[in-house]
Amino acid sequence: MFEEAESDPKLSKEAFARQEPRLRTALLNAQYRLLNRADRSLLIVIAGIDGAGKGDTVNLLNEWMDPRHIHTLAFDTPTPEEAERPPLWRYWNALPARGRIGIVFGSWYVPLLQEAASKRPDTTFIDQQAELIRRFEAELSANGVQVIKLWYHLSAEAQAERTQRLLASPETSWQVMPVDLKVPKKFHHLRDAGLAAITHTDTAHAPWTIVPSADEQVRQLRTAEAVLAALRLRQVPRPARVHKPAESRKPVRIVDRLGKLDYKVGIDKESYDTELGLLQGRLARATRSPKFHARHSLVLAFEGQDAAGKGGAIRRVTHALDARQYEITPISAPSAYELSRPYLWRFWRQVPTLGRIAIFDRSWYGRVLIERVESLIGPAEWRRAYAEINNFEEQLAGNGAIVLKFWLAVTPDVQLERFHERERSPFKNFKITPDDWRNRKRWKDYASATNEMLARTDTHIAPWHLISANDKRYARLQVLRHIVEAMEARL
Amino acid sequence: MFEEAESDPKLSKEAFARQEPRLRTALLNAQYRLLNRADRSLLIVIAGIDGAGKGDTVNLLNEWMDPRHIHTLAFDTPTPEEAERPPLWRYWNALPARGRIGIVFGSWYVPLLQEAASKRPDTTFIDQQAELIRRFEAELSANGVQVIKLWYHLSAEAQAERTQRLLASPETSWQVMPVDLKVPKKFHHLRDAGLAAITHTDTAHAPWTIVPSADEQVRQLRTAEAVLAALRLRQVPRPARVHKPAESRKPVRIVDRLGKLDYKVGIDKESYDTELGLLQGRLARATRSPKFHARHSLVLAFEGQDAAGKGGAIRRVTHALDARQYEITPISAPSAYELSRPYLWRFWRQVPTLGRIAIFDRSWYGRVLIERVESLIGPAEWRRAYAEINNFEEQLAGNGAIVLKFWLAVTPDVQLERFHERERSPFKNFKITPDDWRNRKRWKDYASATNEMLARTDTHIAPWHLISANDKRYARLQVLRHIVEAMEARL
Repeated sequence: MFEEAESDPKLSKEAFARQEPRLRTALLNAQYRLLNRADRSLLIVIAGIDGAGKGDTVNLLNEWMDPRHIHTLAFDTPTPEEAERPPLWRYWNALPARGRIGIVFGSWYVPLLQEAASKRPDTTFIDQQAELIRRFEAELSANGVQVIKLWYHLSAEAQAERTQRLLASPETSWQVMPVDLKVPKKFHHLRDAGLAAITHTDTAHAPWTIVPSADEQVRQLRTAEAVLAALRLRQVPRPARVHKPAESRKPVRIVDRLGKLDYKVGIDKESYDTELGLLQGRLARATRSPKFHARHSLVLAFEGQDAAGKGGAIRRVTHALDARQYEITPISAPSAYELSRPYLWRFWRQVPTLGRIAIFDRSWYGRVLIERVESLIGPAEWRRAYAEINNFEEQLAGNGAIVLKFWLAVTPDVQLERFHERERSPFKNFKITPDDWRNRKRWKDYASATNEMLARTDTHIAPWHLISANDKRYARLQVLRHIVEAMEARL
Repeated sequence: MFEEAESDPKLSKEAFARQEPRLRTALLNAQYRLLNRADRSLLIVIAGIDGAGKGDTVNLLNEWMDPRHIHTLAFDTPTPEEAERPPLWRYWNALPARGRIGIVFGSWYVPLLQEAASKRPDTTFIDQQAELIRRFEAELSANGVQVIKLWYHLSAEAQAERTQRLLASPETSWQVMPVDLKVPKKFHHLRDAGLAAITHTDTAHAPWTIVPSADEQVRQLRTAEAVLAALRLRQVPRPARVHKPAESRKPVRIVDRLGKLDYKVGIDKESYDTELGLLQGRLARATRSPKFHARHSLVLAFEGQDAAGKGGAIRRVTHALDARQYEITPISAPSAYELSRPYLWRFWRQVPTLGRIAIFDRSWYGRVLIERVESLIGPAEWRRAYAEINNFEEQLAGNGAIVLKFWLAVTPDVQLERFHERERSPFKNFKITPDDWRNRKRWKDYASATNEMLARTDTHIAPWHLISANDKRYARLQVLRHIVEAMEARL
């Protein structure tokens, strides 16, 4: 891309007039093909020098294509609510559905570009940002979100000339912002720093295109051509990998942790009542502490075999919480609305702000459990998911979230007992479905998927707690204890 | 309801044990009936004295019913993002889909109750809040959201006794919050003020139930019975009216404003170019002014016949705006997702924060235009919609939004010309569909619906601008001028 950064090409009005109708028709047709197939969405990232016509590009694309299926996703300084979540949260949240196009202003490149343009750029920060971006864009591409990035480029002369031309008339002088007047002074620095910073994010699956912007018509044609080329690709280019290189090479030993668990542990009713009250008291204090509200959030994922007692454990946790402070998200099969985005999208939407608690009754781990075992997705997808999930949790933890994951484990005989008990109860029989019986038949497949999941995603920053749950009371206390200890260690 | 506020009834363990299974089964069955019919949703508002067990009620309802279809909607002090919108925005935003149940904590009663409990309650404020609530709940009921409200009640003695009992043991003392210790002192005042304040919101369609809460088992049974009674109603109780009494009695004269418009006005290209630049300059300054960002937002609704030039007018407006500042929402037929909530829901979701601009290409007026003319809804619904819309816009304006509505009017001959032109253009023919030709045949029906809409919803706080659009340039300047003048008058 970078050799294309030639200075200020021009186009005659006639040449533009010849090309415009052909391009508009082609763009529109390509957009409708995308919409009909609905096998992916397209994100167009807009970046570059101020005054190079980035804003006009939204108008252009909306005029040349059918604006009903285009979303302008414009981001400014993060709002307080946005700032309390990981930096990529707002971009995840805004992902368009398959078949649609998003134009992104104020994208995930802003921190990188600002740092690069500063007086003494912090190269460690820049490297981290570039890595974060590469992983994000690779994950999007792998999950059906095509990404192209347009860099609007002006030579210093063209920039100065444009400003002077606009300033000359009262009808156009308003288009010159104070920032435009400052650009010439440090123009070369800004441009070179920006270009250098994005170099490491120019990938085959999410390429940069430099758009020469001195001539409005050249700018329009190049923009349209880049979008058209992207829409015409038969499929979203596949990234080489999503995860960090180091991770992918690290061998993982898969152990039968489920099989080795001691299922005989238990606790008597009296000790349970006492301990429960004490642990709930500690949890109540921890979740109401000023430090928790200022710096942390709590993300709890509950997994386990059917009838392992997830719901009961969750209620023992929420009993100690302020009802305004937490949200329980029960996870079942995704809706059509959710299926039209990358699968982590619906979990990103639930990421809590500081001082809040998100509880998942089943979670994003469905990807490597039910979706894997029931062959709802292919091996490439669930294998990739381990890295995607670790990446997701790393971002949560990086932002202060305390992330804990619980696997409540029962033995087949105890499960059977509980199934029968549920069937007999008039108000519990809704909890038992044909799915539960079917899953039970595949006990071994689920166990081996679980053991692999535990091996690949039990990280220091987001640990798994494998809990023996044949005795419900014991399991509930264990859950509470792990939460309380993790919180108290941070407060 | 209020005669029920007896003091502290009790229930034996045996009596509870007899009733519990019956109630749980009935509740669960009623919940599934609701889910299957999906003709309404149910909101359960939780309010009352602190320490009366409001929090436990969430656990109870989630344990007794299927928690996958229950949303706990817990609201705290408004976040900065919430505070920049009308107070009811966050409740609108969170409405559950039909078939589902929402439990509301920190509801729209909080400001009313806080004021009532203050040392010198402002009765005007209390009356306004009660009126706002009555209109909101009536609108919800009329649109398929059933509302019931539970007031958790304790006698002063029971409250003091509960606190002492909990404090006595380290296992339960954490349940006593500092606020609980303060309650006894002003207990009578708090309780009486609360009950008095909610009296005027006890309506047939959104009734209050007082739940005696000293005895946990009585509290549980009464809660379950109230929810069960609500779920068993064959349909959502209809409110007597949605609008303010004064409004409903005011006669409206419907004038043929569309017919009387001067369609011959126009402007030459040169004057247009000059004026366009100047108006865009004024708009650019107004939308970037600190006062706008501190106190106002801008809501623009564009309506008009097909091919009247709405899209072109919108682009002339956005040309002067910062891309990060506005959002264009093109409105077409609602999705299934949107149809499962009251029709204004999808517009409430788009209400901008301060300093932001929401542009609607077609709008909530579809309710009294296409939905009326094409008989997609009954007369009762579109007649009620005028008041609902005025109510919506009044809340926007009350929060600082500058609300402007544009009707771009063309004559049938000009529309025909533009239709043909669109059909001939390879990149405009997507803009012309069989719907457009069909609407054209019903020109008179649309005209009369439009004239009635203009008469009933052209309010001082959210005026309609009826604009002659046979000359596109003239129409664009008029739109810009009205926006600029409305903004400059406020800044």
